Amino acid sequence: MSTIVRIDTRDIRFPTSIHLDGSDAMNPDPDYSAAYVVISTDADDGIEGHAFVFTIGRGNDVQVAAIDALRDQILGKEVEPRLLDMGEMWRTLTHDSQLRWLGPEKGVMHMASGAVINALWDLKAKRAGLPLWQLLAQMTPEEIVDLVDFRYLSDALDREEALSILEIALPGRAARVEELLTTGYPAYTTSPGWLRYSDEKLDRLCRRAVADGFSQIKLKVGANLDDDTRRLRIARKAVGEDFPIAVDANQRWDVGEAISWMNALKEFHPVWIEEPTNSDDILGHATIARGIAPMAVATGEHVENRIVVKQLLQSGAIGVLQIDATRAGGINENIAHLLLAAKFGIPVCPHAGGVGLCEAVQHLSMFDFVAVSRSKEGRVIEYIDHLHEHFVHPVVIERGHYVAPLAPGASTQMRAESIEEYTWRGEFSLMGET
Amino acid sequence: MSTIVRIDTRDIRFPTSIHLDGSDAMNPDPDYSAAYVVISTDADDGIEGHAFVFTIGRGNDVQVAAIDALRDQILGKEVEPRLLDMGEMWRTLTHDSQLRWLGPEKGVMHMASGAVINALWDLKAKRAGLPLWQLLAQMTPEEIVDLVDFRYLSDALDREEALSILEIALPGRAARVEELLTTGYPAYTTSPGWLRYSDEKLDRLCRRAVADGFSQIKLKVGANLDDDTRRLRIARKAVGEDFPIAVDANQRWDVGEAISWMNALKEFHPVWIEEPTNSDDILGHATIARGIAPMAVATGEHVENRIVVKQLLQSGAIGVLQIDATRAGGINENIAHLLLAAKFGIPVCPHAGGVGLCEAVQHLSMFDFVAVSRSKEGRVIEYIDHLHEHFVHPVVIERGHYVAPLAPGASTQMRAESIEEYTWRGEFSLMGET
Repeated sequence: MSTIVRIDTRDIRFPTSIHLDGSDAMNPDPDYSAAYVVISTDADDGIEGHAFVFTIGRGNDVQVAAIDALRDQILGKEVEPRLLDMGEMWRTLTHDSQLRWLGPEKGVMHMASGAVINALWDLKAKRAGLPLWQLLAQMTPEEIVDLVDFRYLSDALDREEALSILEIALPGRAARVEELLTTGYPAYTTSPGWLRYSDEKLDRLCRRAVADGFSQIKLKVGANLDDDTRRLRIARKAVGEDFPIAVDANQRWDVGEAISWMNALKEFHPVWIEEPTNSDDILGHATIARGIAPMAVATGEHVENRIVVKQLLQSGAIGVLQIDATRAGGINENIAHLLLAAKFGIPVCPHAGGVGLCEAVQHLSMFDFVAVSRSKEGRVIEYIDHLHEHFVHPVVIERGHYVAPLAPGASTQMRAESIEEYTWRGEFSLMGET
Repeated sequence: MSTIVRIDTRDIRFPTSIHLDGSDAMNPDPDYSAAYVVISTDADDGIEGHAFVFTIGRGNDVQVAAIDALRDQILGKEVEPRLLDMGEMWRTLTHDSQLRWLGPEKGVMHMASGAVINALWDLKAKRAGLPLWQLLAQMTPEEIVDLVDFRYLSDALDREEALSILEIALPGRAARVEELLTTGYPAYTTSPGWLRYSDEKLDRLCRRAVADGFSQIKLKVGANLDDDTRRLRIARKAVGEDFPIAVDANQRWDVGEAISWMNALKEFHPVWIEEPTNSDDILGHATIARGIAPMAVATGEHVENRIVVKQLLQSGAIGVLQIDATRAGGINENIAHLLLAAKFGIPVCPHAGGVGLCEAVQHLSMFDFVAVSRSKEGRVIEYIDHLHEHFVHPVVIERGHYVAPLAPGASTQMRAESIEEYTWRGEFSLMGET
């Protein structure tokens, strides 16, 4: 038996706003940040669990405070029984009645629960000597459904039905693991599509994306229809007629505007429109989906929990579910999202980018392929070539595919030097910009 | 011109869990708390703006940290232009792109925006020498719609339609103010209905509620159907056949369970079931509403913002909207809620209780009556006799009605002695319990 003896939190910020990478219609100047947590035990192995919540700058300190508020849930407690029953651990973190009031199960407090459970997952996978996706993919269907809180889901998916989804996937698991180890998981790139890039840069990056083997590109839209039309024409010409192009409005529109704007762009046949309107607007997304078919609606990076995901699926609002590694309540809730998507036959194409989101979310897509959906069809993980150098085990992209990670853990551990250098001290230093 | 020179925040907690008042099916041991903010200027009048977010204990420090994160938005800024354009002020607070990421517009960060704008409303009303409800009710329809952010609402309600709702209400404003000053606003009491009270106490408090002139009582339900049946039988017998009884499940049920449970209680014809399931489950509430008609569904105390309120109304999910003074983005967002409810013809019956929620929300119902809905029919404000003594201008209940407050401000200022005594210092002192 060992005990959790230390929980360190850090406010880590990167000065990304200086170069305007990551600018979109709603987020003009993000400073990609991580509210970071390290869980240490008194075991001889010295293994730590690392995880974080991704934010975009100001307020990262509030997110750190929320993680600190969960300290008493695990500090000084025995670690083995908690790692053994991660479903119960998740419920303990998210159902603390006093803390739950601050959401419930949404926003800063819910993301904090996600960071703590994800740090425990990192610890568990490292102890098992396995990358997280393989650890999850080796669990029995019963063990997997035990991770999920089916409360409030039963009108769409209950434990038994989830179990049968996982049991159907049992036979081919080994072959799909092999396939991932051989060919990886397809990625798409958002790098060409930032709003403030020049037309020349857009054209060049689109062509490079195809040459690099990516399966799809994505362009930010929503600030100006003439600009969007011009940029989509450039992109479509650069990648060819059949190459998938997604577009992303970052919640810029009201419902009616989303429908008319997207229909004005339909000649470029985008594969999906991401975040056409406010992420809380389930009915709005459903109306948009009906109004722009066969173009699909995608959302998820701001979707707070499994109850909203359930409704997006029930209402036919989305053709693509975009899970996010740190928005909802961590690995456990994301497994609920994967099971819900499988039930409704909707592909999961994770949101990534920011800092560390690619590293974290790849494990979920790979687990999904091996043990849940059994398919890579219409499925791609977002990839942005940004800040990976700060991770101990950064993602590796080869021929436009995520290479299956082999290092034990959840890939969520930053390099000690990066943690130290980018710990927020009230302003960005000149060093921080190099 | 004067300048905002100080923003003080406080973590204030009352040890209410000790007496088990306020216990329900989901919140067994709340310690009613306030993340409290005071805005001071350098004006000679010495007037301060006071407001708070209500929480139930642990995590109140996180809520305070979120309010602190908004400090730079107003500290050192001129106050008059901000008080003059409170709509723009609200958008500045809620649309800061980096802080918005932490919601968006939900949870800890959004409630923090609400506290800051509400403190400015308190300041504005005190400067005007008016109680907040009268200040609001004296604004022109144009000034009122300027307070509201119609983004994401236009598929249900736009500025023009909101304007016409307010214009229709113009003629009778003076008479309705008179009526409020004479008779107040009807209240209902939740005091009889806490889960852990004995049957004898339930019976006694029900009879007292009728004798005291309340318009309705409410009972907590959802822990055990046999208990609920017995308690409702006692209550129904105590108050008589025609007296309205509401019930409140505090999100205890899944959708199917809510329908069957409520149909098992229908012989007691409750006027509404409050929070039958998770507050994020719009479609679930709509299904429940269809499954239990003519009993109505009520929700709102955990509803994060106007976009969710819009959908609850669009989908026919609720027969009663329960706004909360500190859950959403403050007065401005609650005015959006009132306008949406008026558009859909749904009565607003505020959630209150906790600490200071009665004081704060009475102003919104009175403004609603004077300038928006023009009606008190089917409308009651929750009242719980709890912690009012800590406020400089506590609510006054006479013959089961809220007496219209006359003191300048938003009634959200606590007594200095209470602030001092109940400021959280890591544990509840014995003094704190007296």
